[in-house]
Amino acid sequence: MTQADALTELRERLREFASARDWAQFHSPKNLAIALSVEAAELLEHFQWVTEEASQRLPAAELAQVCEELADVLLYLVRLADRLGVDLIAAANDKIELNARKYPAGEVRGSSRKYTDR
Amino acid sequence: MTQADALTELRERLREFASARDWAQFHSPKNLAIALSVEAAELLEHFQWVTEEASQRLPAAELAQVCEELADVLLYLVRLADRLGVDLIAAANDKIELNARKYPAGEVRGSSRKYTDR
Amino acid sequence: MTQADALTELRERLREFASARDWAQFHSPKNLAIALSVEAAELLEHFQWVTEEASQRLPAAELAQVCEELADVLLYLVRLADRLGVDLIAAANDKIELNARKYPAGEVRGSSRKYTDR
Amino acid sequence: MTQADALTELRERLREFASARDWAQFHSPKNLAIALSVEAAELLEHFQWVTEEASQRLPAAELAQVCEELADVLLYLVRLADRLGVDLIAAANDKIELNARKYPAGEVRGSSRKYTDR
Repeated sequence: MTQADALTELRERLREFASARDWAQFHSPKNLAIALSVEAAELLEHFQWVTEEASQRLPAAELAQVCEELADVLLYLVRLADRLGVDLIAAANDKIELNARKYPAGEVRGSSRKYTDR
Repeated sequence: MTQADALTELRERLREFASARDWAQFHSPKNLAIALSVEAAELLEHFQWVTEEASQRLPAAELAQVCEELADVLLYLVRLADRLGVDLIAAANDKIELNARKYPAGEVRGSSRKYTDR
Repeated sequence: MTQADALTELRERLREFASARDWAQFHSPKNLAIALSVEAAELLEHFQWVTEEASQRLPAAELAQVCEELADVLLYLVRLADRLGVDLIAAANDKIELNARKYPAGEVRGSSRKYTDR
Repeated sequence: MTQADALTELRERLREFASARDWAQFHSPKNLAIALSVEAAELLEHFQWVTEEASQRLPAAELAQVCEELADVLLYLVRLADRLGVDLIAAANDKIELNARKYPAGEVRGSSRKYTDR
């Protein structure tokens, strides 16, 4: 079994889901990128008035809703990557490599000043 | 080998990355949710002035940048799920189930009117 | 009457609103910036599955909801600018000047290639 | 002089700016809503790793950049409202009224639990 099975399965389920509903017509990369952004904001909304510290200890009901939003983001991400022909896992591993070179541990340790990923 | 290996590997690499830089202190769920939202917008920016049709045929250089943004979104998603103790794959599969019940193929086929996932 | 009256009035109403509810404690610039971003996504959500062309002809009910989201964005923008001591109108006029220099009409006419505002 | 002069002026300047560059073709409400969301995220990015408390005391250079992002958000907001034929000030004042009824001061004072604006 390859390492991408969990995401490959999701990708297949999403293809069937859209196909059964004839929804692929709405799934241009542009629209999917919008949907992804909207879901990310719905996720963020759960944290907008709580402190950073309280965000570590969300009540169960709140965490369940956050869980659903995390799922929504992943689903649109997988669908968008599929429509663009992008290998998500490979891209992610490449990006960690790039970030490691951009932010050498010795230089940036403990500092948020350089904490960006571009 | 479990099906979650690719994501589990990413999760471990991200733990080491943050640990080596003493950056876990900045990784409250609140901050990670913000970062995720910011990356989703950077991804979306590549599509803001192109047509839906053109978004299906991005030039190679543009697609390479989009690839990086997709990676950034996945990395923050994996990191946030980790900090919250959420199983991303399980949550995603549950959500597809929920969506299938909310949007029965027979009822919504071809229509964007009901096309939301909440 | 100065030219900033409409926004100044909004600023005052928002100060009273927050004060009457003892909500200023939640109005750090960070939290307000998050709220603004969340509202912008709620606005965007109304457009995610419609075509650009259909977005010019929204049904009355949809337009009424979009109207409310536009209002939400403006309210958080005014509140955030107030908490940061920023003159929104002056900043906006300065930005148009800057954009005019960055994108001289003669050079960019008709092209979306250079259409960004940074 | 009406109270909307500052925003009316911005609206007129933005019409001329787009017209001189033949950019109105890209300014569908859908595209403008995307651009607005992208700018809101660029604004938010300045706050992603700082504490709420530090966000009240931004260094001058950082505040200058935040100022530009606030301007970008306002410009797209004014442009989008214009393309949709929406009176921003009227909508904003109506929304404050609505919020005052949804969140009576006596009931919600000091609590973030009900702090949402929908």
